[in-house]
Amino acid sequence: MERLKVLPKKVLPIITWLPKYNVQFAIRDLIAGLTVGLTVIPQGLAYANLASLPAQYGLYSSFMGVFVYCLLGTSKDITLGPTAIMSMLVAQFCSRPDSWPTEYPAAISQSDPALAINLTMLSGLILLVLGILDLGFIVNFISHAVIVGFVSAASILISFSQVKKLFGIKLHHREFFKALPELVSEIFKGHINWYDFAMGIICIALLKGLQILKQKKENDESLSPVVRKVIWLIGTARNAFVVIGAALVAFALEKDNIDFWKDGCKSGTANCTSLTLTKLEDASLPPFKVPMLSYSYEFLNETTQEPEEFHVGPMMIISKLSIGLFIIPLMAYLESIAIAKGFAIKNGYKVDPTQELLAIGLSNSISACVSSYPVTGSFSRSAVNSQSNVATPAGGIVCGALVLLALLFLTPIFVYIPAACLGAVIILAAISMFDDAGIKHTWKLYRLDMIPLVVCFVVCFQDIAHGIIAGIICHVLILLYKTSKPSDGASESEGHIQMAPAQGLYYPAAEMLAERIESAVQDGKNITLDLGKVAEIDSATSDAFKNALNFAKKESLSAVVINANSQVEQILRDNGAGDFIAEEKSSGEDEKDAFLEKV
Amino acid sequence: MERLKVLPKKVLPIITWLPKYNVQFAIRDLIAGLTVGLTVIPQGLAYANLASLPAQYGLYSSFMGVFVYCLLGTSKDITLGPTAIMSMLVAQFCSRPDSWPTEYPAAISQSDPALAINLTMLSGLILLVLGILDLGFIVNFISHAVIVGFVSAASILISFSQVKKLFGIKLHHREFFKALPELVSEIFKGHINWYDFAMGIICIALLKGLQILKQKKENDESLSPVVRKVIWLIGTARNAFVVIGAALVAFALEKDNIDFWKDGCKSGTANCTSLTLTKLEDASLPPFKVPMLSYSYEFLNETTQEPEEFHVGPMMIISKLSIGLFIIPLMAYLESIAIAKGFAIKNGYKVDPTQELLAIGLSNSISACVSSYPVTGSFSRSAVNSQSNVATPAGGIVCGALVLLALLFLTPIFVYIPAACLGAVIILAAISMFDDAGIKHTWKLYRLDMIPLVVCFVVCFQDIAHGIIAGIICHVLILLYKTSKPSDGASESEGHIQMAPAQGLYYPAAEMLAERIESAVQDGKNITLDLGKVAEIDSATSDAFKNALNFAKKESLSAVVINANSQVEQILRDNGAGDFIAEEKSSGEDEKDAFLEKV
Repeated sequence: MERLKVLPKKVLPIITWLPKYNVQFAIRDLIAGLTVGLTVIPQGLAYANLASLPAQYGLYSSFMGVFVYCLLGTSKDITLGPTAIMSMLVAQFCSRPDSWPTEYPAAISQSDPALAINLTMLSGLILLVLGILDLGFIVNFISHAVIVGFVSAASILISFSQVKKLFGIKLHHREFFKALPELVSEIFKGHINWYDFAMGIICIALLKGLQILKQKKENDESLSPVVRKVIWLIGTARNAFVVIGAALVAFALEKDNIDFWKDGCKSGTANCTSLTLTKLEDASLPPFKVPMLSYSYEFLNETTQEPEEFHVGPMMIISKLSIGLFIIPLMAYLESIAIAKGFAIKNGYKVDPTQELLAIGLSNSISACVSSYPVTGSFSRSAVNSQSNVATPAGGIVCGALVLLALLFLTPIFVYIPAACLGAVIILAAISMFDDAGIKHTWKLYRLDMIPLVVCFVVCFQDIAHGIIAGIICHVLILLYKTSKPSDGASESEGHIQMAPAQGLYYPAAEMLAERIESAVQDGKNITLDLGKVAEIDSATSDAFKNALNFAKKESLSAVVINANSQVEQILRDNGAGDFIAEEKSSGEDEKDAFLEKV
Repeated sequence: MERLKVLPKKVLPIITWLPKYNVQFAIRDLIAGLTVGLTVIPQGLAYANLASLPAQYGLYSSFMGVFVYCLLGTSKDITLGPTAIMSMLVAQFCSRPDSWPTEYPAAISQSDPALAINLTMLSGLILLVLGILDLGFIVNFISHAVIVGFVSAASILISFSQVKKLFGIKLHHREFFKALPELVSEIFKGHINWYDFAMGIICIALLKGLQILKQKKENDESLSPVVRKVIWLIGTARNAFVVIGAALVAFALEKDNIDFWKDGCKSGTANCTSLTLTKLEDASLPPFKVPMLSYSYEFLNETTQEPEEFHVGPMMIISKLSIGLFIIPLMAYLESIAIAKGFAIKNGYKVDPTQELLAIGLSNSISACVSSYPVTGSFSRSAVNSQSNVATPAGGIVCGALVLLALLFLTPIFVYIPAACLGAVIILAAISMFDDAGIKHTWKLYRLDMIPLVVCFVVCFQDIAHGIIAGIICHVLILLYKTSKPSDGASESEGHIQMAPAQGLYYPAAEMLAERIESAVQDGKNITLDLGKVAEIDSATSDAFKNALNFAKKESLSAVVINANSQVEQILRDNGAGDFIAEEKSSGEDEKDAFLEKV
C-alpha cells in the first residue's frame, strides 16, 4: 500500500503532500469524498436533532471543519464534523438556563444555537492554547477505562433519547431517570403516533437489513465485482438511501398538508402533519460571522406585552457553559486523536498529536464562524473514508462541497424527512457504540480499572458531564494511591534485607511510551523493551505496549519484551501479546543472590 | 540508653509498659511532667489568645489530651496540647460568620468557643475514622515542601499578629494585607500604649536573654553541676518565670484599679487598667459535656430589645467549618506524627502510624468534652519532655495534673498577666518556626519542589487554608505530570533501540519506604538499598532514605545504596548521604551491551 508520510512539526502539513498531488490521488479523493458526503448529510441532520438544534445546524457543522483540517491535519483518513457524543454533550450544555427569559417568538428547539456556536469558538481557542503550550498530554488523564464507561453509558442514553421519536411521543423530562418512567407511562396510555411508529420500525428494519447485506455479501466471491461494488455502496450510504426513501414517502403523504414556503409551517412542526417531520428554520448557506461571546435575542416583556432585547454577555456564556469548557474541548481532541492514531497505525503513517491539537482547535474556531456546533473526528465516517481508499485530506473538500450544495438546493426536501427515520439512524449508530468488548477487556486485564469505568458509567446516567469528571477523579485517586505505595522489592535473609523499590507504569504514561516506540518503528528500528524496572502495568499500558509492538511486527521489525516480572508478563499474555516476551530470563536473580552472599 | 519498645497493633499500648513500671520511671516522669507543665501553662494562655479565645481555653486544652494519649499513644516523648499552628487555624475557622447574630452580652473574644469545641470533636472523629479505615497514608500527600512553605508563612503571620499587642493597639482588620497598613498607620499616629510597649520589650529581652544563657551555659563544664541544672531549669521554664514576673508587676501597678471578683471587670478588660491584661471568663475546671454539634447563644432582638436564643445546628457548624474539617484533622495528625517519628528515631523506639491516628483522634474527641480546642503534638514541649528524660507517657499525667491545679487555684492570678507579655512569648516561639533551613534544603536538593513551597507560602498570606490547599494541589499536579512522563531509558544503535522505562519515586512514596527500612533496622537487619529501578527521586524521598539509612548506621548496622543512577546519586550526595553509596558499580551496563550485541 502506498504510504503518504506527512511530516509532523510543520504548521501547514498540506505543503508536504500538495506538490505530489496527481490525477490518481484526485480520483480516489473524489470517490471517497462523495461517499462520505452521502453519509454525513443524513447523519448531520440526525445529530443536530440529538443536539436539540434545528436540523440545518448539522450541515453547518459538516463542511468548514473538513476544509480547515485539509490544510492543517496530519491524518488523511479522519473526517471532522458532528458526532453522536458531541451532539449529546451540546444538548447537555447548550440549553438556556431558566434564569434567562424565553425567546419570542418561541424557538423550535431546546438548545440555544448562539450558545452552541460560542461554545464551538471557545472550545477551538482552548485547544489552540493547549496546542501552543504543548499541554496535549493532559488528555492522557482521561483513561481508556473512563472512555469505555462513558461511551457505553452514552450509547444507552443516546438510543433511549430517540425511542420517543419512534413512538411520536413528546416528553417533558430530559433526565434519564425521569424520562424513562414518563415514556413508559405515555406508551401504556397509548399516546403513540402510529404513523411515526410504522415509519421508525420500517427504517430500522431497512437500515439493519442493508448493514447485514453489506457485511455478508460485499466480500462474497460468488458475486460479480459490479454487484459487490453496488452492495458496498448501498450498504455504506444506507443512511442516505433510507432517509431519501422516507422523505419521498412523507412527501407523498403530506404534500397537501404542508406549504412551508408560504405560511407558519415554514418551521415544519408536527402540528401540520400526521407524520412528525424535521424541525428546520428557513435554511440556506449560513452567514460568515465571528462569534464574539455576546449576542442578543428577543423576549416578550410580560408587563408591556412588547418584545424586548435580552443581551447575553461573555461572563454569562462562560458561567453557563462552566465545566463544558473543560469537557467539550478535551472530548473533541480525544475522540479525534484516538481515531487518527488508529488509522495511522493501520495505514502506516504518523500523526503528530500537537499538530492535531492545533488542527482540531482551528477547525472548531473557524467552523464556529459558519454557525457550527463543536466538531470532532467521526469514527463511522472516517472508517467509510478509509475504506473508500482516500489518498489525502483533500477528500474532505469534496465532502464539504457536497454538504454546501445540499444546503443550497436540498433544504425544501429536508423538511419532509420524518423524525422517526432520523431517530432510527441515531439509534442504530448509538447501539453499535456500546463497548462490551472494552468492558470485558478491562475486566480481564486489570480489574482495578473497573472502578473508574463503573463509576463513570453509573454517574453518567445522572449527568453525563459529572460522569466523566467522577471517572477521571476516581482514576487519578487510584493512580495517586499507587504512587504512594511503590513495590519495595524486598528480599530478606538472616540478618540482611535487600530492597529494590520500583513504581508501576500506569495509564497517563502509556501513550508517551507507545509514541516513543512507534516513532522508533517509523525510523525502521528493531525494538527491545526491557520491563525490568517496572513493578506493575495496568490495562491501558498493556494495550499501548501491545499496539506499539504489533506495529513493529506489521512493519517486519523485531520486537522483544525482556525482564518482565510475573504480573507484567501475565497481563501482556492475557492481552494476546505473549509472543513478544523473550523466552530467556534475565540474570538479575542470580546476580542478586551473588550479591547477598558477598555482603 | 534503655529502650522502651512499645508493641504496635495493640489498641491499648499502655498494657505493654505499665507492668514494667517502677520507681525510677516514676521519678523521671514526675520531673519531666512538672517541667512540661511549667511550659504549657504560659504557652496555653498565650496560644488561646492567638486562637482568639478567652485565655482559660488554652488550659482546658492542655490536660485531657495528655491523659488519653498516655493510654493509647506509642511515643513516650510527645506531649499533646495547644500549639501555635493549631491556634492560628482555630482563629481562621472559628470566628462567627457575619450572617449569625452578635452574642449578647458581647463576647470577650473573636472566636466562638462552642464552635471551636465542636471542631475538636469533629476533627477527632474524622481522625478516628481514618485510623479505623487505615487511610493514614493520605497525609503523605501533604509534602514536606508544602509544610516548609506553610510553617514559614505561619511564622511570619503569627509573629505579625502579636506585634499589635506589644504596642497595645487594637486593629479592625485580621487579614494580613489589610492589617499591616493599619498597624503602620496606627503606630505613626502614635496610638501606642506605652505601658504595653515597655512591658513587651522587657519581656522579649528577658526571654531572649534566658534562652541565650541556657544555650551558652548549660553545657559549660567550668560551672558546677548544680549551677548548670539551675540554668537549665530557668532557661527551659523561662516562659513561666517571665509570665509570673510580669503578672506580679501588673498586680503591683493595677491592683487598685481592678476588682474582678465583684464587678464587671470580672472579665478583665483593657478598660480597667493602663496595662492591657488577659481576657478571661470566670474560670475554674471546665464542665464535662459531650459536644453534640448543636448549641445556642443569646443575642439582642433589635425590634423588641429583648435577648433571644440563636440555635446553631450541625449543618451550620459543618458548612461554617468547611475545609477546616479537612485541614485541621490532617494538620493535627501530621504535626504529631512528624514529631513522634523524629523522637522515635532519636531515642530508638518505634511508633505505629495507624495507632497514632487513633490516639490523636480519640484524644481530640475526649478533650472536646472538657471544652478543648483542637490539640496536637507540640514540638517545643515534646523537646522539653525528651530533654527532661521522660520514661513513659505517664509523664503526661503529672503535666495534666499541674494544669488542673492551675485552673483550680491560679485563675485569680492569670487576670494580671499582661497581654504584651503573652505576645512576647508567642513572637519568640513563632520566629523560631521560620524554616529557612528547610527552604535552603529544598532549593539545594530538588528545585522543582520549590514551586509548591513558594505557591503555598505566598497564598498563605491571602488565606492560610487556601495556601495549604494550593500547595497540595500544585505538588499533586507536578506528581501527575511526572507520572505521565516516565523515563524511557532508551539507548539507540544502528537499526535497534532498547527501552527500559522506569518511574521515579516521589514524596507520597517516601514515608512508606522509610518505614519499611526502619522496621527492618528494628529487627536488626543490615540494609542493601538497590535503586537500579528508580529513574529519579525528589527531596522528600532523598530525606526519607537518608534518615532511614542513618538510623541503621546509628544502630551499628550496615547500610549500602547500590545501582543509583547519576541523578539519584547526586541528590543523595547533596543531602549528605554520599557515604552510603557503594563504590562498586552494577554490571548492568555491560549486561545491556552484551544483549545488544546478541540481538
